[in-house]
Amino acid sequence: MLGNFSYCNPTKLYFGDGSLSYLDTELPKYGKNVVLIYGGGSIKKNGIYDDVMKILERNGKNVAEISGVMPNPTLPKLYEGVETVRRHQADLLLAVGGGSVCDYAKAVAVSVNCKEDPWEKYYLRFEEPDCEVVPVGCVLTMVGTGSEMNAGAVITNPDTKQKIGKVFADERVMPRFSILNPKYTLTLPHYQMVSGIYDIFNHICEQYFSGEDDNTSDYISEGLMRSLLHSSRIANRDPQDYEARSNIMWAATWALNTLVAKGKTTDWMVHMLGQAVGAYSNATHGMTLAAVSLPYYRHIMPYGLQKFKRFAVNVFDVDPAGKSDEQVAQEGLDAMEAWMRELGLVMNISELGATEDMLEGLADSTLVMAGGYKALSRQEIIDIFKESL
Amino acid sequence: MLGNFSYCNPTKLYFGDGSLSYLDTELPKYGKNVVLIYGGGSIKKNGIYDDVMKILERNGKNVAEISGVMPNPTLPKLYEGVETVRRHQADLLLAVGGGSVCDYAKAVAVSVNCKEDPWEKYYLRFEEPDCEVVPVGCVLTMVGTGSEMNAGAVITNPDTKQKIGKVFADERVMPRFSILNPKYTLTLPHYQMVSGIYDIFNHICEQYFSGEDDNTSDYISEGLMRSLLHSSRIANRDPQDYEARSNIMWAATWALNTLVAKGKTTDWMVHMLGQAVGAYSNATHGMTLAAVSLPYYRHIMPYGLQKFKRFAVNVFDVDPAGKSDEQVAQEGLDAMEAWMRELGLVMNISELGATEDMLEGLADSTLVMAGGYKALSRQEIIDIFKESL
Repeated sequence: MLGNFSYCNPTKLYFGDGSLSYLDTELPKYGKNVVLIYGGGSIKKNGIYDDVMKILERNGKNVAEISGVMPNPTLPKLYEGVETVRRHQADLLLAVGGGSVCDYAKAVAVSVNCKEDPWEKYYLRFEEPDCEVVPVGCVLTMVGTGSEMNAGAVITNPDTKQKIGKVFADERVMPRFSILNPKYTLTLPHYQMVSGIYDIFNHICEQYFSGEDDNTSDYISEGLMRSLLHSSRIANRDPQDYEARSNIMWAATWALNTLVAKGKTTDWMVHMLGQAVGAYSNATHGMTLAAVSLPYYRHIMPYGLQKFKRFAVNVFDVDPAGKSDEQVAQEGLDAMEAWMRELGLVMNISELGATEDMLEGLADSTLVMAGGYKALSRQEIIDIFKESL
Repeated sequence: MLGNFSYCNPTKLYFGDGSLSYLDTELPKYGKNVVLIYGGGSIKKNGIYDDVMKILERNGKNVAEISGVMPNPTLPKLYEGVETVRRHQADLLLAVGGGSVCDYAKAVAVSVNCKEDPWEKYYLRFEEPDCEVVPVGCVLTMVGTGSEMNAGAVITNPDTKQKIGKVFADERVMPRFSILNPKYTLTLPHYQMVSGIYDIFNHICEQYFSGEDDNTSDYISEGLMRSLLHSSRIANRDPQDYEARSNIMWAATWALNTLVAKGKTTDWMVHMLGQAVGAYSNATHGMTLAAVSLPYYRHIMPYGLQKFKRFAVNVFDVDPAGKSDEQVAQEGLDAMEAWMRELGLVMNISELGATEDMLEGLADSTLVMAGGYKALSRQEIIDIFKESL
């Protein structure tokens, strides 16, 4: 069933090698005051910082900076950024980095003119902004989160140990423009690259493994997954393959810019399980997803058998002739496992530091989602974590 | 190779049964003066006109009308519309109809404030608007063209017999919003429905059958084609199947809103051949495409063999085991032919009124495109038309 929905995604994307030059096209659309936002400083080592600053200068911008945005941006960092942007009276927030930096810029953008506490309003009461939103532009240097073309902004409150992923419905929160140069991603270590690839794949799975009926979104998802499988195998052998890396970058954007969730229910349970592991171990996000995925999918397979069968045939080319539905579905997950092992993903949570005595705690911090094929009981969550050890 | 590109598609879509109510959400964003644009008056028979007028009235709009927009909107009609919109000082153009009405509204929107002759500027010199563009909103009642989410606007000059499809690069030309209610499409005659379905399928083919390399766009195209094959078979048996019709409507939007052409070359030669037939016979657009497609694709197959093989396997589930590439590719086109016959599409141009003595004239009016697997010679074009008789 393709249900009712609305769709709007106004972000302008500039894609390809050399696309940073389009910053010259975009900057004149905004006022003089720009706040440049970045992370730990790798952009200073690889030269992107200098390139961006040169373009800001030749466009006569008055630049302030927020640096040190961490992989999981915190609430105190959000408050700090809001102060900087207010002081600088920024007309544009320019995020240069990966998903965390983009997420953070969006969280600041909705908070600068917010009359209430943004954590309370957006992350606890889940409200939408009723104030002016400062425009955000992104220069993406890492691939996976899709933050460059969506209205998501995950913020972590270290006091309450809450990591909340707010997806705004207001399209003013989406980046006005994003610059995607696949070359910027070539220097990433292999571990980070494959972790990002699995994050992308799982974003699609989370939206695909839900609902019984065929709809266009599921077919687009299958196309994206096939593209990602194809490119990931090339990139795994040769991380410097520009074409493979560019296809991965483009698939990542469409994996999480709302399109493939349109008109259908979604799951997101692997993210809930993985985030619980991440909170305990500070492990790389994509690896936490990889480590819990197969136990989870094997567990829910009987409840969504037809979709898992379809996944096997349409995504992993399993030949269904003469086999039971269960056999076909299992072969699909076996093929997925083989692909994951080929990439060298982390396949169990022990490797990420989880131990048997943590299982109860992990289950406690796992939010249960209701959109998938089975709303998990606490015992099922513990069983899945145990299976993931 | 995924080449460099930019992407921006800001149209807000409201999809589903009952989505007309979102006109109440959109109308307050624009000024008082609205010009309602529609075609031959079918919207007065099916009640959509009354529903739209009621919403315009309760939003206090001052409404003028342009009616009688023809299937191939003409240049004189464009001039007439520009006068009406100027006189009414319109703040919004509301197109209610199919692709022609949406196309026409966009052509008017870029012409109202244009200081030069719009035909000369946009359609002969292929320039972009350097004036204010009047906002356009669409309520879609027919499916196929994708006009609801792109910046295309085909206009025909009856004096010079030129039908020119201008695709604007300026995203201000795209509809600000489009309302897509699949229920509005249920009353269309079967002939029009399947003609629209083939138009959608061919839009994807035109973008797919070009370039040798795998890229994400081609994978998305395969997903869209598979979705369309699936839904079209259901709709063909039961045109009242809401789910099938809604998936067809959604696939149509994504078949021609620029996404699946990103980073690659495209062909569009079937449209050139079909439009030549249409100019001679005034036949339904989708049927002209259907009538020339197989002779064209069978002719170019050897020049793009790997893509035709991939099409056979990934779109039509042809089993490649133990077969030559040629055999697999041919079986794919045979499967496509079987699907087309199942839908009851027109499979030759004779049925559309073309005769052997027209072949030279048809060839004369066929524009040759260079993006496909083979730039056709005049003799090849004549051969393809002969094969299509």
